[in-house]
Amino acid sequence: MSQRPRAIDQDLRARAKRVIPNGMYGHEATHLLPDNYPQFFSRAKGAHLWDADGNRYIDYMAAYGPNLFGYGCPEIDEAATLQLAKGDTLTGPSEIMVELAELFVGMISHAEWAIFCKNGTDATSMAIMIARAHRGKRKILCARGAYHGAAAWCNPFRVGTLPEDRAHIVYYDYNDPESLQAAAKIHAGDIAGVFATPFQHEAFLDQHMPTFEYAKAAQELSSHEDALLIVDDIRAGFRLSRDCSWSDLGVDPDLSTWGKAIANGYPISALLGSDVAREAASRVFVTGSFWFSAVPMAAAIATLKRIKETDYLEHTVTMGTRLRAGLDTQARQFGFGLRQTGPSQMPQILFEDDPDFRLGYAWVSACIEHGVYFSPYHNMFLTAAHRSDDIEETLLATEKAFQMLRKGAKSLGPVPQLQILKAMVG
Amino acid sequence: MSQRPRAIDQDLRARAKRVIPNGMYGHEATHLLPDNYPQFFSRAKGAHLWDADGNRYIDYMAAYGPNLFGYGCPEIDEAATLQLAKGDTLTGPSEIMVELAELFVGMISHAEWAIFCKNGTDATSMAIMIARAHRGKRKILCARGAYHGAAAWCNPFRVGTLPEDRAHIVYYDYNDPESLQAAAKIHAGDIAGVFATPFQHEAFLDQHMPTFEYAKAAQELSSHEDALLIVDDIRAGFRLSRDCSWSDLGVDPDLSTWGKAIANGYPISALLGSDVAREAASRVFVTGSFWFSAVPMAAAIATLKRIKETDYLEHTVTMGTRLRAGLDTQARQFGFGLRQTGPSQMPQILFEDDPDFRLGYAWVSACIEHGVYFSPYHNMFLTAAHRSDDIEETLLATEKAFQMLRKGAKSLGPVPQLQILKAMVG
Repeated sequence: MSQRPRAIDQDLRARAKRVIPNGMYGHEATHLLPDNYPQFFSRAKGAHLWDADGNRYIDYMAAYGPNLFGYGCPEIDEAATLQLAKGDTLTGPSEIMVELAELFVGMISHAEWAIFCKNGTDATSMAIMIARAHRGKRKILCARGAYHGAAAWCNPFRVGTLPEDRAHIVYYDYNDPESLQAAAKIHAGDIAGVFATPFQHEAFLDQHMPTFEYAKAAQELSSHEDALLIVDDIRAGFRLSRDCSWSDLGVDPDLSTWGKAIANGYPISALLGSDVAREAASRVFVTGSFWFSAVPMAAAIATLKRIKETDYLEHTVTMGTRLRAGLDTQARQFGFGLRQTGPSQMPQILFEDDPDFRLGYAWVSACIEHGVYFSPYHNMFLTAAHRSDDIEETLLATEKAFQMLRKGAKSLGPVPQLQILKAMVG
Repeated sequence: MSQRPRAIDQDLRARAKRVIPNGMYGHEATHLLPDNYPQFFSRAKGAHLWDADGNRYIDYMAAYGPNLFGYGCPEIDEAATLQLAKGDTLTGPSEIMVELAELFVGMISHAEWAIFCKNGTDATSMAIMIARAHRGKRKILCARGAYHGAAAWCNPFRVGTLPEDRAHIVYYDYNDPESLQAAAKIHAGDIAGVFATPFQHEAFLDQHMPTFEYAKAAQELSSHEDALLIVDDIRAGFRLSRDCSWSDLGVDPDLSTWGKAIANGYPISALLGSDVAREAASRVFVTGSFWFSAVPMAAAIATLKRIKETDYLEHTVTMGTRLRAGLDTQARQFGFGLRQTGPSQMPQILFEDDPDFRLGYAWVSACIEHGVYFSPYHNMFLTAAHRSDDIEETLLATEKAFQMLRKGAKSLGPVPQLQILKAMVG
């Protein structure tokens, strides 16, 4: 357990156990995190997070992605609050929905139209419907292990789903053009869409940037099969580029899915499409109770404007690079090898020679005692609100964590949380 | 076209056509409404709605359900704004998530636990996963024509979906115990869940309250098959009762799905369950980027407290009954027959001798010219914000609409919008 106060968190967990299955669900449950992590939070500002007991953390999870400009960004909250005074969820959309669609489409090279929704899974599931409606074909090619949401067709676990839910989902290996082409060959003539995350960002694994050959193969194959290429930019969107994440590779998809950071934490996601996909998009019936709500749209407009007008992106790269360099130096000093992969602004930090994650878990567990919130298995996120001070304070904490780890490394046992994961994978 | 100003709306529609498929999508698109309906709105307060051109309407659609205490309800918006200052979408849930779960579960007789999500479809899709996880069975019994969302398994249209998406959905006729039992007999031993809306509230049709025999048969069949009974209270929740809508019938489901009005328009939905379903609920992986956001939870707490503490429900019944009586009198005076069905606070208004809806469409089209926003095909909603003045003003408008209708009834042609619907149904 933690040496920091946890009494309120413990009490909340006990209460939650009674009225929430398993005490918590989904990606923000702490079941897979070390025991000393807090479950409940009371407030946040900028890059800082306070748990229910009042302990402060420098946060590197950014709400698992939505926080791009800092928690409680005044300009974005002000835009949202002004819209709230006019109206939010009404009998029809607000006029600002058109403004948002124009602004967003104007920023993304491949996009000619937008549909707004709430969950990332809404956007990816809609992309599949549109891809299938496009030419009446069925197969959707997805990279093995890639996360596209938690609906039955893409849930990373299978409990409660049926084989029919993914009857026409075909898996290939990311960054492997031959695997992609082999999957396509088997289903030639029946391929509706090809899904790709902008880079490989799976939990518990090193991250890999896409090769040009892979991205190009995905595009050519989609084009050859008259299928739609779908870039799932929900997690990485606007973290790598101010355009679709594959724009730097010169690969324009037909559809791209967005969510997480596009409104700095206000609930809105989006599917963007090219003209090729417009006709199919106009035929599918898609909707949700709150898809037309104006407040998240006002927040999205304010966020997109900041994306266009500020150096947030370069700033997150600078801060991420500084953190990465500092951690590398410390790890060497203390005799550990770190595998720091992915873009520095979306870092994944794993340990060398740590097949069962015991070093990584012990290290982040020590970090959180010193006020730094890292994930032991999930990629993290720098934000525009992380300042040099935060990086320095983080590096002081990580140094102490490496010290503790060096002292205790040999006595570490297996990570009990990972038994839970094994049981879930089944 | 409308005789009211529509220039701004027309301009917005033209712009929307370029950046949104078909100019708009989903249930708030105006494709199925008369030509003189506005598409875009600028503000709302209480029971009133202003379109982009500044025309005011007394609104009976309540954002298709979410508005329960009036647009911009000060107490609810204040609770949300206070929470926004602390934090919204964070790296973990706020402590108020536990408070909300306790409050909600405490209000719903059958419920022992809650899972919060964003769309109604999240809750219904999750209910299916849990029902299937419960005993490893597959079949879900749904009433033919009932709306449970727009995911591939339940989309009212089939474009972009595959037969596999509903391979194990079995349809029965609402309010028909024999049809339900016949469907169950065919699939005995493989029934995972039985879905029922609290009453029959389909578009373009009269509404029907459930018979006790039907509700009881659904419960007994679920119990006998060790399947989960699921009441889909997304649309009707808290409109008929301060408990689950079937509580008055003495029928407790195993799962109930909620959304729409539970936070007065803030984006949150929920799945509530009994202890029987808890174990399965704790095994499925369900999540979404914004499912843990604190602001909609703060709004839900404020809304649920108002549901417990005010006479909103009795008030909506009083206002709905007054409207219904006034319309009946007017219709008789002008020689029309109205079919006013469903609970008076969720009225469906259709015309007798109007098989192709030309009378109904012409009448609502006249009403909107006089500042009353009705739907020609969808059930409507009274809110706590509808005052006696609003009902009186509405009845003045509807009287003028009946006058116009009497003059023009014989020259009415078929409704072109319904050709679009036919094409969608395919």
